[in-house]
Amino acid sequence: MKAACIENGAVHVRELPDPEPRRGQALVRTHSCGLCASDAHFLTGGRHVIELSRRMGGPYAGLDETRPFVPGHEFVGEVIDYGAGSRRPVAPGRRVTSVPIMRQGGAHAVVGFSHDCPGGCGELMLLDEDFLLEVPEGLPDDHAALIEPLAVGLEHARRGRPGKDDVALVLGCGAIGLGVVAGLALAGAVPIVAADFHADRRELALKAGAHIAIDPREVDPYGPLPDLGGRRVNLVYENVGVPGMLQRIIESMPFDGRLVMGGYCMEPEPLYVFAAQNKRLNIQFAGGEEPQDMDLAMRSIAEGRIDVAPWLGERIGLGSVAAAIANLSGPGTSVRTVVDPRLQLS
Amino acid sequence: MKAACIENGAVHVRELPDPEPRRGQALVRTHSCGLCASDAHFLTGGRHVIELSRRMGGPYAGLDETRPFVPGHEFVGEVIDYGAGSRRPVAPGRRVTSVPIMRQGGAHAVVGFSHDCPGGCGELMLLDEDFLLEVPEGLPDDHAALIEPLAVGLEHARRGRPGKDDVALVLGCGAIGLGVVAGLALAGAVPIVAADFHADRRELALKAGAHIAIDPREVDPYGPLPDLGGRRVNLVYENVGVPGMLQRIIESMPFDGRLVMGGYCMEPEPLYVFAAQNKRLNIQFAGGEEPQDMDLAMRSIAEGRIDVAPWLGERIGLGSVAAAIANLSGPGTSVRTVVDPRLQLS
Repeated sequence: MKAACIENGAVHVRELPDPEPRRGQALVRTHSCGLCASDAHFLTGGRHVIELSRRMGGPYAGLDETRPFVPGHEFVGEVIDYGAGSRRPVAPGRRVTSVPIMRQGGAHAVVGFSHDCPGGCGELMLLDEDFLLEVPEGLPDDHAALIEPLAVGLEHARRGRPGKDDVALVLGCGAIGLGVVAGLALAGAVPIVAADFHADRRELALKAGAHIAIDPREVDPYGPLPDLGGRRVNLVYENVGVPGMLQRIIESMPFDGRLVMGGYCMEPEPLYVFAAQNKRLNIQFAGGEEPQDMDLAMRSIAEGRIDVAPWLGERIGLGSVAAAIANLSGPGTSVRTVVDPRLQLS
Repeated sequence: MKAACIENGAVHVRELPDPEPRRGQALVRTHSCGLCASDAHFLTGGRHVIELSRRMGGPYAGLDETRPFVPGHEFVGEVIDYGAGSRRPVAPGRRVTSVPIMRQGGAHAVVGFSHDCPGGCGELMLLDEDFLLEVPEGLPDDHAALIEPLAVGLEHARRGRPGKDDVALVLGCGAIGLGVVAGLALAGAVPIVAADFHADRRELALKAGAHIAIDPREVDPYGPLPDLGGRRVNLVYENVGVPGMLQRIIESMPFDGRLVMGGYCMEPEPLYVFAAQNKRLNIQFAGGEEPQDMDLAMRSIAEGRIDVAPWLGERIGLGSVAAAIANLSGPGTSVRTVVDPRLQLS
């Protein structure tokens, strides 16, 4: 199969052997796959993740930076076949998505960050049949590719345990931040303040359910908010993932505040413990969706309760993945570029 | 008055002007004051605290390392007088302790870390009359000096929200760790595992209510615990406060674990956010007692529910403070050395 691979910190299109499903695995032809900032982060910071995973016994321990692996963990595709002896829960020809997890003995691999489980930037994938989620017929491929990042935002929103006395601040309105906004809006109760440098992202946050959207260079997100009668935020969702954010947020938060760390920063963060202690802060680290979040994300998109259409940008072929990953963020970029490996290469 | 002062990172005994109480302030003659590891930490790491407090607007912002201040925030003393126009809630001659906080306009100073509010390592102190806690008559001075550090441990224990399904690990059995053990034991429900390198501290932890006490060099605190039927800890209390602990704990904790950071580390801690994210950890930063914790600590000591007598070591005069602060921890040291400024200097 053809695939865009990460190898030695760069992206190349390669011809790879077709993956062969084992028992319990579905072979899937990729229809659409979103490019995530963590794919870009991995190009530069992946060695930290691999080293730490080796020390701690995590799912990235088996990655070898010098060997190619196929990224892409936000995917939808069509079931082609199963390994011999499988349960075959979804019929061939139907479309599926999944949490990007593949069980391997007692451990598990992350689809898109593994040499054995190629991600959606290749023509073919292997998925764990027990985690397959069948995609409803009317749902366009590219919308279905957004189920996974939306589910991540829904998980983050949920882990913050928003309550009726909270004022939530969502920092960073990429796909995850917008998913947090949408998740908080679904939960209903909380005034939602979204913050992003870019006007187009603030606009999307308002569409997703934020009550106000601010440019943090113009309005202090931690000060009294005139549009909320002078109330201040106390529940902060971090969805940026650049080094230094954690300590900056700690210094800005109010006493007894809660922080949900969603941004996947792969560099070490210098943290002053006593700064967080003086304010009795609580930090909930949020890591990604669970099956309940995937379910809710799929239903919310399919039933029109969350509209992800405005998040979609270009649809590209494998030959454009390298350039797209190099330009994921910045002014004027769309929330999600999707890859369709069936397109002509360029 | 005579006082042991911190100045330019060293301790000197000095003759200082007697403090003069203003309205709302009690003038108190110190009877006993505990020496805390944070006094020792401040000698080496204080500049970080001061810098950060200036940036964040905290209570240490006004400290000037080159000018003397009198440490000591675990104190008991006798009320001598009040500033003119005060409420005078406790009669002169009675003994009091207090949270080490002095209101100053809209801000507040920390008693023992302020040029205006000398701590208990001096003959005289000023206390905020609204925070005075009268000490019951039968309670010895040195036991009363332990109300504050015990209250800190009780606060940490409380902030971890121990529940019936938790297994708690208390790392470090100094005064704060022992207070956490005692607080968890008061709460009743949780198996308590104490860990310390030193056998005498483990012995104290068992006396304070720990169910098992381990040397972490011999028994992995995070592994299945044979004395608890193979259960593993999921609620960790950090009371050590040395750089590197936070990341080491994160790497050892189980999925969905909760960590209460009590150790007052003044150096920056390198933290890998994604390591905590992969396990969905929750970190509650615990900073110190509130009045409810002081109340509970005093009642628990006075009523014999928590026995702090075994924590007490030497009682020294002001002339021995420098040497005592230099030797607060290590094998064979007592949990608390107390200073009585009324003793002969040496």
